[in-house]
Amino acid sequence: MQPFMDENFLLSTETARTLYHEAAKEMPIIDYHCHLSPAEIAGNVRFENITQLMLGGDHYKWRAMLSWGVEERLIRGDGDPREKFIAYADTLSHAIGNPLYHWTHLELQRVFGIDEPLTKDNAGVIYDLTSEMLRGDDFRAQALIDRFNVDYLCTTDDPVDDLHYHRAIAEEGALRARVLPAFRPDKAMNIDRAGFPEYIRQLGQAAGMEIRSAADVLTALERRVEYFHACGARISDHGMETVPWGEPSFKQADKAFQAAMAGEEMKQKHIDSYRTVILAGLGGMYAQRGWVQQYHIGAMRNNNTAMFRRYGPDVGFDSIIDQPIAHNLSRLMDLQDSQGQLPKTILYTLNPAANAAVGTMLGNFQQGGVRGKIQYGSAWWFLDQKDGMEEQMRTLANLGVLGAFVGMLTDSRSFISYPRHEYFRRILCNLIGRWVENGEYPNDTEFLKGMVRDISYNNAKAYFGI
Amino acid sequence: MQPFMDENFLLSTETARTLYHEAAKEMPIIDYHCHLSPAEIAGNVRFENITQLMLGGDHYKWRAMLSWGVEERLIRGDGDPREKFIAYADTLSHAIGNPLYHWTHLELQRVFGIDEPLTKDNAGVIYDLTSEMLRGDDFRAQALIDRFNVDYLCTTDDPVDDLHYHRAIAEEGALRARVLPAFRPDKAMNIDRAGFPEYIRQLGQAAGMEIRSAADVLTALERRVEYFHACGARISDHGMETVPWGEPSFKQADKAFQAAMAGEEMKQKHIDSYRTVILAGLGGMYAQRGWVQQYHIGAMRNNNTAMFRRYGPDVGFDSIIDQPIAHNLSRLMDLQDSQGQLPKTILYTLNPAANAAVGTMLGNFQQGGVRGKIQYGSAWWFLDQKDGMEEQMRTLANLGVLGAFVGMLTDSRSFISYPRHEYFRRILCNLIGRWVENGEYPNDTEFLKGMVRDISYNNAKAYFGI
Amino acid sequence: MQPFMDENFLLSTETARTLYHEAAKEMPIIDYHCHLSPAEIAGNVRFENITQLMLGGDHYKWRAMLSWGVEERLIRGDGDPREKFIAYADTLSHAIGNPLYHWTHLELQRVFGIDEPLTKDNAGVIYDLTSEMLRGDDFRAQALIDRFNVDYLCTTDDPVDDLHYHRAIAEEGALRARVLPAFRPDKAMNIDRAGFPEYIRQLGQAAGMEIRSAADVLTALERRVEYFHACGARISDHGMETVPWGEPSFKQADKAFQAAMAGEEMKQKHIDSYRTVILAGLGGMYAQRGWVQQYHIGAMRNNNTAMFRRYGPDVGFDSIIDQPIAHNLSRLMDLQDSQGQLPKTILYTLNPAANAAVGTMLGNFQQGGVRGKIQYGSAWWFLDQKDGMEEQMRTLANLGVLGAFVGMLTDSRSFISYPRHEYFRRILCNLIGRWVENGEYPNDTEFLKGMVRDISYNNAKAYFGI
Repeated sequence: MQPFMDENFLLSTETARTLYHEAAKEMPIIDYHCHLSPAEIAGNVRFENITQLMLGGDHYKWRAMLSWGVEERLIRGDGDPREKFIAYADTLSHAIGNPLYHWTHLELQRVFGIDEPLTKDNAGVIYDLTSEMLRGDDFRAQALIDRFNVDYLCTTDDPVDDLHYHRAIAEEGALRARVLPAFRPDKAMNIDRAGFPEYIRQLGQAAGMEIRSAADVLTALERRVEYFHACGARISDHGMETVPWGEPSFKQADKAFQAAMAGEEMKQKHIDSYRTVILAGLGGMYAQRGWVQQYHIGAMRNNNTAMFRRYGPDVGFDSIIDQPIAHNLSRLMDLQDSQGQLPKTILYTLNPAANAAVGTMLGNFQQGGVRGKIQYGSAWWFLDQKDGMEEQMRTLANLGVLGAFVGMLTDSRSFISYPRHEYFRRILCNLIGRWVENGEYPNDTEFLKGMVRDISYNNAKAYFGI
Repeated sequence: MQPFMDENFLLSTETARTLYHEAAKEMPIIDYHCHLSPAEIAGNVRFENITQLMLGGDHYKWRAMLSWGVEERLIRGDGDPREKFIAYADTLSHAIGNPLYHWTHLELQRVFGIDEPLTKDNAGVIYDLTSEMLRGDDFRAQALIDRFNVDYLCTTDDPVDDLHYHRAIAEEGALRARVLPAFRPDKAMNIDRAGFPEYIRQLGQAAGMEIRSAADVLTALERRVEYFHACGARISDHGMETVPWGEPSFKQADKAFQAAMAGEEMKQKHIDSYRTVILAGLGGMYAQRGWVQQYHIGAMRNNNTAMFRRYGPDVGFDSIIDQPIAHNLSRLMDLQDSQGQLPKTILYTLNPAANAAVGTMLGNFQQGGVRGKIQYGSAWWFLDQKDGMEEQMRTLANLGVLGAFVGMLTDSRSFISYPRHEYFRRILCNLIGRWVENGEYPNDTEFLKGMVRDISYNNAKAYFGI
Repeated sequence: MQPFMDENFLLSTETARTLYHEAAKEMPIIDYHCHLSPAEIAGNVRFENITQLMLGGDHYKWRAMLSWGVEERLIRGDGDPREKFIAYADTLSHAIGNPLYHWTHLELQRVFGIDEPLTKDNAGVIYDLTSEMLRGDDFRAQALIDRFNVDYLCTTDDPVDDLHYHRAIAEEGALRARVLPAFRPDKAMNIDRAGFPEYIRQLGQAAGMEIRSAADVLTALERRVEYFHACGARISDHGMETVPWGEPSFKQADKAFQAAMAGEEMKQKHIDSYRTVILAGLGGMYAQRGWVQQYHIGAMRNNNTAMFRRYGPDVGFDSIIDQPIAHNLSRLMDLQDSQGQLPKTILYTLNPAANAAVGTMLGNFQQGGVRGKIQYGSAWWFLDQKDGMEEQMRTLANLGVLGAFVGMLTDSRSFISYPRHEYFRRILCNLIGRWVENGEYPNDTEFLKGMVRDISYNNAKAYFGI
């Protein structure tokens, strides 16, 4: 029996251990997609207690607690933070096989040096102990980031954002890690949502122009891309429930735009045209500047109306949608590609049933001279667990070239999620170790160490050009 | 090499063995969804031979035999029962990796004490031997149920059923297990089927009213829910090829209803409205009474027209449909939830490609204070095999809280299917054992025994309130 | 640690080793579906160098190279062949976990006796060495086929083909393997493609008639089926992006046909009717003659417009489509079955998410007296790898009768792909070995050897009636 989560956690072969301890472990982190708050980084926020640090904003954990039947008061409500942490510990003990179990214990081990398994019985003591520790400066936001050997982290920012926190962080220069903005123009895509006209006004303001057409939306976005680029951005991000595809016509797109601004009903085909031309146009802007675009496909959000009214978005009531995506994704990427405007692209699917469809989509649009131009993004959100990560890597390996993979990101809202990079690297080394020890790949340790270092860090550095 | 199906069958680690033999094995069975005939239970039926007992009504086995090329005469036809059993044995030997292989041998071991592998060579002898045994009273229906330590079993009953067999069984009191009815109003949903108007007349008669509208359908169903409740029912069940969703409007629903009763053509959107309001209305009735609703999603039935004409439904010509379900399921559950009328619900998917979509749907509608309110049902029908069950449990564990799972049911038409609970428990213990021995969960045997007992029995008892 | 790809490659248990070395290995090959060129076989082509032999026409390898960022010049372009092979070797080293890694090394081992791992460092030497070997007559096309103990191979041929190469090969009689044509009438189905009218004229010419209606298309196809039958064909093949289904009416079908011939726009429902009646009609022709029909479902082709314009089809820009298929497939097969015209059928899905839907579709249309009439085809194209093949076999085993499986085919354009049969057999033996050593199936070696021989060869021989 392997001891519980010791230094060889998830490393089931000698080769895996060698690769992890002698190659993967030492590499710095490029966290190229996360949801950390630039304000909190700039403010170098201090945490009152482990509940605030670990459970504040973490809808993964809230979801688990609700599933276990914990009362709202102790989840999103105003319950006592110590009691909340105990309720979380109780939930966790029953969540065997859930990634939270491993994430939480990696966080306890790496952040607080606590190696014992968390239970409802010791949760109070751990709460008190960690509260004490959190008073120290080495547990403030910036110290937490730097402790994990982070070279770069990319936040997720709206085009209208003036990025003053990013500028402040850079100017202050206290943080070793570089904090870059990333461009996420979802609100400019959400033409069928209530707040669209208001958002367009904000976007116009940020871009210093009046937006009167779909074409103007693109012009305004390009000004903001320019601004983001000047502030160091090299990455964009798009969230899509499904992949849109419509006639790539500005005339059709504009019908949707004018209707949306006037609060009138839109035809679906015009909405699809709008989204298609905006996405294709943005792709061109990214391509010109050497940016990477990320497509996050398949999240069905805000399923619970009552909870949405009570708490708003991103609080734990999202799930996976199972609509077909391959046809539209092929058309959308081909539109960009055939105009020479397809940037480097990372495709993420939240629906594991689409893994193979996405895994084979890459190959349609790879480009000579650009290593791994189209990437299959690491297992995302609900899939960001041992089985999901291994499945994503096996799929990529079977259908593409694993050695070109840009690897892991946290996608997290928490300052202590960096051990997920460790988790990923252990799983990667274990997967490779198993192949080697089964005689499926030669036992060339030095070459394999290089591959592991590349997937852990070097590939991302080269790919993002940072 | 592990011996063939001995006491440590499927238990590959010491931890798995300890958990199974010292915790799971001893727990009674709550078979909360099956298709046993109340008439046969009440009549305490006696079986002529193993063919009648094992192959009679079991379309899983018929399907396998047809795949192996056995003639109809020896499957659903009037062939000699001994010859049929030999043909089944021959099929089974070639069905390596099929759950029938394990089910059949567990049945031979646990019911008849026969440990040797069944082959076409020994099938005749086994037929004769078991025919002899079946003459004993300890092989009649009630003895078979009680021998497997069944506490509760829930049959599947139409709302128009007067449940007199259930009353008879309860009055007689000979059976240790309690036999409860379950409410399956599919025929009231099937507004586009030929027999609908006739069924509505039957339903009206059973409810003591004339049904003139969609609203009346609900009123009649509520009277039957009341009656079923009085007879001990706490569970309903809905079979759905795909998940319906339409405007939740009684006005629209009634257009479908009136057309159906008049034998006129219906618009799909009105059918969808009808199904939506009926399902939502029923959900409210269940919620008020603390019932559990089950949604069985994804069976495409009666694919073979020639065989349907010859034999009718449920004889082995059904398969898995691959339509998207997540959007409609979200809307349907949200409609119930937002009206405070979402009962405890178990979601089953026959399409394993939807596992993750369903596994994440749960979390959208969990409720504080109700442990595991929304459940991901155990691997169903075609998926009820080692790989399928492990996949269902891994999915649930990764995406929810495995410790809240209500566990196994047989869904069977056979009196000797109870070893499937054993099969499930072995797979559960093996899964947990592997995690523990890999160092992924602490080796806290007493806690794990409790979890295994909960998933085997206690969770179901609490959840169904029986 | 297992040595790299030695004689026990992929055989992780003693049982697996026994089954492979003492049963599977010795069986001849029936390669019942491939894309070898009859002209090249008849011409007994000689290869200049390993690049031409191994990379010429192999879009799997081109795709991997493009993913690794190799320049077009060294992929599909006019680069130096030695440099191309080195670029491939470099790609391959980074494609850990990709089937190309195993295929290439099996090819090096079995064709050239080269056991060392291919790297960019030794690729030049291997290129030179193999170029020397390729000058020998034992490396010409026919010698390569015969060296792999091939009994039969079926090419893929258009109905208008006069099959003179097949006749020439048979008349020459130099090849031990029998080369049979297979009937692939996709062009007659592609009513919505530009070249359709021209193709119909060719088809009419080949059939010696003028084609004026959808019914005439079937008549012409039947004449070609007759001709192919006389030339030894027993198999047909249909490629389908998704499964068509429309009203099976010649009147509706003819509307599409007349519009297509006139270059006018067609309604989708008429296209669907056209495809439905043609497929159903062909099914009847196949059934009458005891043929097998193959449905290859789920390839989305020519996704990259720029590359299609540059190179045409089948050069590495195809991927998996994720449309639902179960409903239409059920209707299409039922239409044939209910008219007594469903031939033996092999269903292949390129989308692994449809594995279970396809795996259960079989059972709907099996027939008493015809062992394994409906087959679930071996893992196809992108899925033709260790994980994909094991998944296909596990799915088939769980949902059907593995012992009736007709096994492997190469689907290849290369004369040295036969080791894929070895790869398949090793995976098969390993799967069975694991079940046996886990105590899930009795350790009856002689019976299991028979099963392995059947799946490797005997089942296919009986099924195709060759």
